[in-house]
Amino acid sequence: MDATFDGAVVRADERARERFYDSRGYGTPVDGALELAPVEAAHLLFRGDLDSVVDGRPDADGEELDFRGFLATTAVSEVAFSVYKDLRGRGFYLAPESGGDATTSDADIFAVFPRGSGPWDDQVAYRIRPVSERADVSAADLLALADADGQTTGVLGVVDEESELTYLELSRPAISGSSFHDIPDGVVGDLLADRVLVTDPPTALHERAFYGQRMDDGSPHLQLSLVEAAYLAGLGTLDVAGGQEALADRGRTVEGARFDRRLRAYSALRTAGVVPKTGFKFGADFRTYADVESVDDLGHSELLVRVLPPESVFSPIDLALDVRLAHGVRKRMVYALTGADAGIEWLSVARLTP
Amino acid sequence: MDATFDGAVVRADERARERFYDSRGYGTPVDGALELAPVEAAHLLFRGDLDSVVDGRPDADGEELDFRGFLATTAVSEVAFSVYKDLRGRGFYLAPESGGDATTSDADIFAVFPRGSGPWDDQVAYRIRPVSERADVSAADLLALADADGQTTGVLGVVDEESELTYLELSRPAISGSSFHDIPDGVVGDLLADRVLVTDPPTALHERAFYGQRMDDGSPHLQLSLVEAAYLAGLGTLDVAGGQEALADRGRTVEGARFDRRLRAYSALRTAGVVPKTGFKFGADFRTYADVESVDDLGHSELLVRVLPPESVFSPIDLALDVRLAHGVRKRMVYALTGADAGIEWLSVARLTP
Repeated sequence: MDATFDGAVVRADERARERFYDSRGYGTPVDGALELAPVEAAHLLFRGDLDSVVDGRPDADGEELDFRGFLATTAVSEVAFSVYKDLRGRGFYLAPESGGDATTSDADIFAVFPRGSGPWDDQVAYRIRPVSERADVSAADLLALADADGQTTGVLGVVDEESELTYLELSRPAISGSSFHDIPDGVVGDLLADRVLVTDPPTALHERAFYGQRMDDGSPHLQLSLVEAAYLAGLGTLDVAGGQEALADRGRTVEGARFDRRLRAYSALRTAGVVPKTGFKFGADFRTYADVESVDDLGHSELLVRVLPPESVFSPIDLALDVRLAHGVRKRMVYALTGADAGIEWLSVARLTP
Repeated sequence: MDATFDGAVVRADERARERFYDSRGYGTPVDGALELAPVEAAHLLFRGDLDSVVDGRPDADGEELDFRGFLATTAVSEVAFSVYKDLRGRGFYLAPESGGDATTSDADIFAVFPRGSGPWDDQVAYRIRPVSERADVSAADLLALADADGQTTGVLGVVDEESELTYLELSRPAISGSSFHDIPDGVVGDLLADRVLVTDPPTALHERAFYGQRMDDGSPHLQLSLVEAAYLAGLGTLDVAGGQEALADRGRTVEGARFDRRLRAYSALRTAGVVPKTGFKFGADFRTYADVESVDDLGHSELLVRVLPPESVFSPIDLALDVRLAHGVRKRMVYALTGADAGIEWLSVARLTP
């Protein structure tokens, strides 16, 4: 069976089309014959379905390339190949999204068809972008991959240095809860170095709305974090010398621009009826409770939130760390991406087994 | 009971010494009277054991300071106070290490006496350094705290923004294992973009010594990571065009200076009889197996290793993230601190409940 690599695609005859496309979803039919993306040809070579590919590049000598030789042409990235092979091994048909007429690089995306479907059907289950664990990925790219059309799951397929696969599902979560509480105005607080002490708090403040932390069991004193205090001062509920601006100034002194980002995310969560509390023990900015009626009956917190600037770039290993931790404590990992314009993009990342 | 704050310490009379030092381990006896560090005085005020302290500072007017007023003098950091209060609440006696004659700041260290012991005894169970979650801590400081005298546990007491405590125990672990294997020389590999393909590996290479990853179950091909390949090339076991230098060059291309650090840590672990494999799924550089006899019988990996330059500075939240994750997967978190001089300092961090 003849198959020729022209530097961009591998062309094979009608018999190859019948055998590889019609029955197993490899490649794209062109005039009755078959065009294979390099990654598809590499997989057929790897499996022994193709013995070799003729190197038909202009400056080549028509050499027969086996799997090892074909990989050495660098037409196929190992990263894309690892993802392709893994998904085939899991029983999926998939194709480079650009079709069979482009070389496949890390930046390309695979359209993965639902189990039992193939390129001749219309549906796509996953859009998977293969990346090396060393390739940084921008927040914008992750958001774009998560967007899709609402029916197709966006996925980052990370290949680690030992060629193991980790699939990370990207989505844009809706943030909402039912935690709305009336708190009497006129709460008075003292600004300390990096928190606020309320010596005579109304019961609802902590017991129902879950602001602050008692200084000790049974102590009347309540400690508010700077972000809690700044939010409450902005609502007009908390009186502190200097008001919200003094709290925000102190926040910027102790944690820089991160404070404003965290205050925006905190405010958006509270506005959505979700209670954010510190996520420190989980290495995150916040853990959140969607439905707080009383601190005595809190239940499980649902989200871990990390607040970052929208221009952030993620190393896959940092995503793996966050996602693994969140999974281990039965929470969902969510990034709140927020810049100076005060808008917030929410991005959820979770492990996926395709 | 008279107690006067002079800007550095709080001085009280003999009756105070009897009541607070002799029976409850607060302060330092001086000529039969008592000197309290500000953090100790603040705790007595907080508990109501002292009603107030006279402000005897030169520019003060002899005002009576209650707990709130005393905190407002900023003689006591909230962070140090939170740690002091928490440990007292757990039934420990403790004292600022510098004695009662200095103000207590975040940078100070508490000597915590074994349960049932106090400052009049000789033993110290923990040396605890209180830090705010926002205070970065250098690797050098952590190593120094871990050092101690081999009998006292070094601990970072982190106070998060909601004044919750997390105690992180620091130690210098011994790294050793029993994984030593003979591998025949003359293994041949092809350098691909960021890994090495060995098409005809000797059985011992993967099956016993646990180098590399099979390309597929049953596939003869073995993929080595660049760090594995560079180590094996350095031993003379692996032949790759260009030798170890070509592998290290490629490593530096794909991950910069991090590659050399990781290769040093990898080599040190292998030399100690410990098998490092990628820690990617745990967000770490390596997970390690101390006693590998066969890949079919691996057992549980014991350590998660993150390799960092010795001049690294840690944010407590990053330590919390690593330590929480390691704990969740029943491993020990270890930092390998290694600079260009090739030496490695090992630092283990774990959660502690005093």
